[in-house]
Amino acid sequence: MNRYMAISARNQLSGKITEIQLGDVVAHVTVRVGKNLIESVITRRSAEEMGLKKGDTVKAVIKSTEVMLQKD
Amino acid sequence: MNRYMAISARNQLSGKITEIQLGDVVAHVTVRVGKNLIESVITRRSAEEMGLKKGDTVKAVIKSTEVMLQKD
Amino acid sequence: MNRYMAISARNQLSGKITEIQLGDVVAHVTVRVGKNLIESVITRRSAEEMGLKKGDTVKAVIKSTEVMLQKD
Amino acid sequence: MNRYMAISARNQLSGKITEIQLGDVVAHVTVRVGKNLIESVITRRSAEEMGLKKGDTVKAVIKSTEVMLQKD
Amino acid sequence: MNRYMAISARNQLSGKITEIQLGDVVAHVTVRVGKNLIESVITRRSAEEMGLKKGDTVKAVIKSTEVMLQKD
Amino acid sequence: MNRYMAISARNQLSGKITEIQLGDVVAHVTVRVGKNLIESVITRRSAEEMGLKKGDTVKAVIKSTEVMLQKD
Repeated sequence: MNRYMAISARNQLSGKITEIQLGDVVAHVTVRVGKNLIESVITRRSAEEMGLKKGDTVKAVIKSTEVMLQKD
Repeated sequence: MNRYMAISARNQLSGKITEIQLGDVVAHVTVRVGKNLIESVITRRSAEEMGLKKGDTVKAVIKSTEVMLQKD
Repeated sequence: MNRYMAISARNQLSGKITEIQLGDVVAHVTVRVGKNLIESVITRRSAEEMGLKKGDTVKAVIKSTEVMLQKD
Repeated sequence: MNRYMAISARNQLSGKITEIQLGDVVAHVTVRVGKNLIESVITRRSAEEMGLKKGDTVKAVIKSTEVMLQKD
Repeated sequence: MNRYMAISARNQLSGKITEIQLGDVVAHVTVRVGKNLIESVITRRSAEEMGLKKGDTVKAVIKSTEVMLQKD
Repeated sequence: MNRYMAISARNQLSGKITEIQLGDVVAHVTVRVGKNLIESVITRRSAEEMGLKKGDTVKAVIKSTEVMLQKD
């Protein structure tokens, strides 16, 4: 594989923001990625400085060591 | 929303395992979820005890505090 | 070891909720596990959707890569 | 509560190491805490520099944002 | 390397607190470390129990599995 | 603050790689940032795909929810 890779985090899922809830210190942001909703808790400051709003295209970025697997 | 929820982790993405690489202590597992590949690093012991193998249907489970957002 | 294992997270500690504090976006939940109190910060939405309340029996689930060790 | 607190991580569980498996980069360490086994993946370097060995008394330290809750 | 090591977390960066914002459940704490500002989200309870205030000397402690790398 | 912000992770520390140890699944990478050494465990695949090598300038990227504080 030789794709360009800016950050070591292996999971970078493109989607559209469907909802933002700003709390006092952190914010809850929901992103539609394909058929899934990805939910993220980031600082309120990042949400504001990035100017995140409903409809924005973003990537959800997740380090592979943070991903668990579950078998039904 | 009233869906049944077994675990507090808000991100539970169903997919199929496409590759497993076992290391001495940890394993690298790749899961196809829609058009995305999700990569996970779990302990080798969990991979073995769960009997994970290529083709298995699993859920990738991610706590929302572990999800960052990136704007292009 | 052949125990059934639903999720790759290796730490699953059974206990009883002793306190829940709901914030705007996240909640602080305390669980008694044996002689220890385990404290967890999850989203307020998960706390509400799971209907968590004082006295509930729950498992605290922790990925092994999140556990540090300290020597006195 | 006014107990002395060296680190902000709210979960500090005392126990005894029951097993250490050294890998090339990371190590898998198991600690008995009350009736539970806590499993930790730390760097091999930390395991070696701390001189961790079976029988040592250690604390498992976990940030509360890393603790999920599961209802059966 | 033989330096004394209390905790397995390999990153322990000394600095001075420049700002604390207390939220309902979590707090946002900024620490000057050399030329960088390190930002931390911890529980409000830890911030209060540790008596953290502007000007305090603290260490920012980070597990190495939580550090990503980015190439420009 | 109005600085451009590509990713929500608030900690982005520029430095130079001083050492890379490749394991079977993960790699241990050390980065000099000012007077500190930052250590990172990422997947071996990311280290290889990014072509990381000693002397490279990189940013250590850390989500603020992963930063603990310690008082001496």
